Amino acid sequence: MTGNEHEIVIVGGGPAGLTAGIYAARDRRDTLLIEKSAIGGLIAMAEHVENYPGFPGGVSGMELGEKMYQQATGFGLKSSFGEVTAVRPGQKGQYVKTTEGDFIARAIIIAGGSEVARLGIPGEAELAGRGVSYCATCDAAFFNDVPVVVVGGGNVAITDALHLTRFASRVFVIHRRDQLRADRILQEKAFAEPKIEFVWSHIPEAIEGQDMVKAIRIRSVKNQQPSLLEVGGVFIAAGYQPNTAYLKGVVTLDAAGYIVVNERLETSVPGIFAAGDIRSNSLRQVVAAAGDGAVAAVNAVKYLDK
Amino acid sequence: MTGNEHEIVIVGGGPAGLTAGIYAARDRRDTLLIEKSAIGGLIAMAEHVENYPGFPGGVSGMELGEKMYQQATGFGLKSSFGEVTAVRPGQKGQYVKTTEGDFIARAIIIAGGSEVARLGIPGEAELAGRGVSYCATCDAAFFNDVPVVVVGGGNVAITDALHLTRFASRVFVIHRRDQLRADRILQEKAFAEPKIEFVWSHIPEAIEGQDMVKAIRIRSVKNQQPSLLEVGGVFIAAGYQPNTAYLKGVVTLDAAGYIVVNERLETSVPGIFAAGDIRSNSLRQVVAAAGDGAVAAVNAVKYLDK
Repeated sequence: MTGNEHEIVIVGGGPAGLTAGIYAARDRRDTLLIEKSAIGGLIAMAEHVENYPGFPGGVSGMELGEKMYQQATGFGLKSSFGEVTAVRPGQKGQYVKTTEGDFIARAIIIAGGSEVARLGIPGEAELAGRGVSYCATCDAAFFNDVPVVVVGGGNVAITDALHLTRFASRVFVIHRRDQLRADRILQEKAFAEPKIEFVWSHIPEAIEGQDMVKAIRIRSVKNQQPSLLEVGGVFIAAGYQPNTAYLKGVVTLDAAGYIVVNERLETSVPGIFAAGDIRSNSLRQVVAAAGDGAVAAVNAVKYLDK
Repeated sequence: MTGNEHEIVIVGGGPAGLTAGIYAARDRRDTLLIEKSAIGGLIAMAEHVENYPGFPGGVSGMELGEKMYQQATGFGLKSSFGEVTAVRPGQKGQYVKTTEGDFIARAIIIAGGSEVARLGIPGEAELAGRGVSYCATCDAAFFNDVPVVVVGGGNVAITDALHLTRFASRVFVIHRRDQLRADRILQEKAFAEPKIEFVWSHIPEAIEGQDMVKAIRIRSVKNQQPSLLEVGGVFIAAGYQPNTAYLKGVVTLDAAGYIVVNERLETSVPGIFAAGDIRSNSLRQVVAAAGDGAVAAVNAVKYLDK
């Protein structure tokens, strides 16, 4: 094993990784954070975060990420660009392989988050944050008295649809099949809710609008008939994908690929911790991810001191 | 059972309770927060919080508490002054008795925090936040190259002393007995650390200083001889006390009186949740308490919807 040595390596620069960085660096541990794209992680995509405690007027995801980054580097956190491609426990510590070089750390905090599954249709990327949302818990409150669409048929989609009825004037649920995957109890609630209308056996084809979502084009999978739904919001609930492909066989993952942790956020490998959306049963909220980052860092420091 | 009815009652207005309030109120649940003294909880005492993510220059505990409160009330959180004296599960919901009136809630989030055990000696209250600290993790970084004192002999005291050696020029540990209660491994580390000096069989009598701590007066319990130690900081690690006396026999508490919870922050009673420093195994950090508040509120909302 060769590579740059550090006491702690953090994988991922979202709220969990940055908070772990604040705690580890403030404790004067030699800590390196590795991020593959943009500081802030998934929240950098959010135009307006209004439920992170401490910002009564809300804050943009980008700004919040930058503030956390500035705070962590102010305490001495180092950061490096690169995508982690392998982690392997070894005799000298944990070995971390990235596209831009290799590192050795005595402890690793994996905070690589997860990615929303995208539809890959025209208008989706262009209107993200402008009516296209991947998080109803985060964004429902911006859609008061507006018709919206939810794409999906699982628990997240139906939970989102039910949540949206508290705000939107009408909630269409577009699903490619003619029945839901969601739990029966959620289905029963959704069927009983007058604001929700199911559009069965249809797939989305394009999202339309200039600065804001105006409509979604859909098509029947049965007779190929196209339709247009005029809506102000498109909520995509086609699931998430944790960034854990390189961890298979290294730490224990759950069936969906999330990292299994205990209360101290320890993984199945001593010295490897996981924090934020990448771990099993995460709340998928900025403040919970940040809380995780603190817990993981404090326990990683205890591990170093053992 | 009589009293004002709400969907959710939150007990305690610190970071955990306020964050629970942000989440519950933003989800349009009729939510009441009950606080017995000052909004902000224990952090309101902290002059400068520098490890809450999102504030690179730090923020006063008071200001952070006020911002969270403003954010929560902006979403419709109601608040009420009073000390909760009893909680009892009943047929109509949870019954909450306070010094200022009674309430019924379908779900309760207990976020009443804990209090630091105080020494009760002259100068302690006057110089709190001005050299007297109850949290080495929070405040050690402010004592660069200054001699400090830690009062206590348990795990927290010795962990604090070891942590302080990274910053302070010298760390005196004052303990009333002639041996420590702390774990052997911590003791061994502390004995090996040249910066730490033990002052056995002494008790603190007064903390001196005008605007800032200048010294601590101590006395031998063996021969009553007084001494003066000139230090810039006094870290009191005489333990914490969770505010759970009124919950004995209602929800399961651990040996130290903290509320036992599972991963969803559910207590032993359905519909009663606990968040922040009052729960067992809490990190005792603002961001972790806030994360707890979000987890508890989301699960309380799910409980209402069941």
